[in-house]
Amino acid sequence: MLPPWIDQRCPGISMSHRDAARARQDQLTKPAGALGRLEMLAIDLAGLQHRNRPGAARAPIIVFAGDHGIAVRGVSAYPQEVTIAMMANFAAGGAAISVLARQLGSTLEVVDAGTLAEAPMAGIITDKPRTGSRDFSTEPALDASDVAFALDCGRRAVDRAAGSEPDIFIFGEMGIGNTTSASAIAAALLGAPAETMTGRGTGLDAAGRVHKARVIDTALARHGVASGGSPERILGAVGGLEIIAITGAIIASAQAGVPVLIDGFIVSVAALTAVRLNPSCRPYLIFAHRSAEQGHRLVLEALDARPLLDLELRLGEGSGAALALPILRLACALHQDMATFTEAAVPDKPG
Amino acid sequence: MLPPWIDQRCPGISMSHRDAARARQDQLTKPAGALGRLEMLAIDLAGLQHRNRPGAARAPIIVFAGDHGIAVRGVSAYPQEVTIAMMANFAAGGAAISVLARQLGSTLEVVDAGTLAEAPMAGIITDKPRTGSRDFSTEPALDASDVAFALDCGRRAVDRAAGSEPDIFIFGEMGIGNTTSASAIAAALLGAPAETMTGRGTGLDAAGRVHKARVIDTALARHGVASGGSPERILGAVGGLEIIAITGAIIASAQAGVPVLIDGFIVSVAALTAVRLNPSCRPYLIFAHRSAEQGHRLVLEALDARPLLDLELRLGEGSGAALALPILRLACALHQDMATFTEAAVPDKPG
Repeated sequence: MLPPWIDQRCPGISMSHRDAARARQDQLTKPAGALGRLEMLAIDLAGLQHRNRPGAARAPIIVFAGDHGIAVRGVSAYPQEVTIAMMANFAAGGAAISVLARQLGSTLEVVDAGTLAEAPMAGIITDKPRTGSRDFSTEPALDASDVAFALDCGRRAVDRAAGSEPDIFIFGEMGIGNTTSASAIAAALLGAPAETMTGRGTGLDAAGRVHKARVIDTALARHGVASGGSPERILGAVGGLEIIAITGAIIASAQAGVPVLIDGFIVSVAALTAVRLNPSCRPYLIFAHRSAEQGHRLVLEALDARPLLDLELRLGEGSGAALALPILRLACALHQDMATFTEAAVPDKPG
Repeated sequence: MLPPWIDQRCPGISMSHRDAARARQDQLTKPAGALGRLEMLAIDLAGLQHRNRPGAARAPIIVFAGDHGIAVRGVSAYPQEVTIAMMANFAAGGAAISVLARQLGSTLEVVDAGTLAEAPMAGIITDKPRTGSRDFSTEPALDASDVAFALDCGRRAVDRAAGSEPDIFIFGEMGIGNTTSASAIAAALLGAPAETMTGRGTGLDAAGRVHKARVIDTALARHGVASGGSPERILGAVGGLEIIAITGAIIASAQAGVPVLIDGFIVSVAALTAVRLNPSCRPYLIFAHRSAEQGHRLVLEALDARPLLDLELRLGEGSGAALALPILRLACALHQDMATFTEAAVPDKPG
């Protein structure tokens, strides 16, 4: 029932561009390795982009929003209408990701992938199979056709941005209750108890967190995915439309040969799902930020990922990825613009 | 023998601006605390800059270069002439910090605070009491008058930049052998064995590192500062002119009410020295990057500092601070430009 494109293999890495980039790094006027992780970033991007001049100048940001039936179970500190209000705030330019996009010179597209909004909203792309997921404590969150629709929604967003020839994509999310869905997906995919995966979300207290974990464990048992299951089945049972849309967007981006700068916990869960669906997308993922949200550590371990930043953010929206974008851009500028030992007539042999 | 200005108290923090910034952060359209360390950055800058709109737009970079007599003792993997060659590379625009300064829109001033260069060089400010420090394994590195001159050199650099009304300063360094001097200063200031303070610098192997630590311990014992001593005495015994210039620049910047974004190991040792000389400068220091250089951890602990980034750099030049500058700028933009809950009509009360 998954869209057939999901399986298509992502393009390979250019080893010749990687090798050339590595050789160039060793000729730049600095001790070998002294730029630390910036060197490997430039080398990785060169291989992924098949370019001698890797870049991150054009970095469109796409935020997917969705509502979650599970929100009625008291798993979030905020009321459900915040999803739509924040979607409007993204479009109006007042949210954190709006400010970051302006500062970074990135376009910001907001996609309603499944909120409760009944009518299209100004400045927002509406592309959803239904208004919100169902309450997964009592029934499956989504039909198989909803899951397929949301994956396609992610691909459509990537396709819309293709004309701008993106160097890298940033995907963000918004949805009251979506840390509960993300924690449930991750717990099921990793076969881990919800307790290990469940954090404070956007403002729960300790008792709220325990309640949230209990809601998830009960639901995973009810749907028969507590000790695993296919990604397709898990997404239908406890998924959220914006999370699935991001999963689709990640796969589509990698299939188009465009790396993705992965945000915090929720986008990382979408990335884990994407890698389970199509392992060939893994090399295209650059992890930006270690979230303060508890489950992130386990998801990152499962992906063998080490984020660039750890600034204790727990906002979502793609904000952690946006904050890491300048690091990528500077890594590319250093790779491109530094002088070599020969050009600068600096002795390059240890004395 | 220290210049009398060193003792002058730095201006106090504006608690009213801090409080206003904190109140604003709580009204922005995000869960309280969800921007993590960015929130405290904006609040700290508001208090230090006495402004409602903290900023990091104007961030001059000043790199101080010096040579070290100790370099003849085989403590560096690179030959001493690299110092002058790299100074020329800074000025010509080919070094890492040159590229970063251009990308960030920062001015870059290069100060010869004590290299072996016999004549002034194009594009470089010459401001030194002597050509290089002495070999501190056999005699004191510097006279008291050299130390005073270098502190003044740092202040002169800050004064030259004052006309551009800097929001924050970045200081960097270059000098073959200067991790040896920095490790020696830190070991003496902290009363710690050189072994704990000594890293690979810019390319030593394991045996080279052991040799370097032995050279430092022997020198500290010879000069009677192995278990501490006044900063003035330690700087004369094992100091380096560019490190001392940065110490002076840090104090002068803080006295002028301008925060300093502190680079990696060597600049952190200058910062530790500055705080020992004038504790009132401590609040003005924002730590940018955790260096891969071994001694940095102990110096940061002594300063109770937690850097923003950890990207495994070990380059110096101010590069770690430059990489953190976009984080500060984005923190300020978010503080300034995000909508409040009221402005965006987003429900702000937990439901």
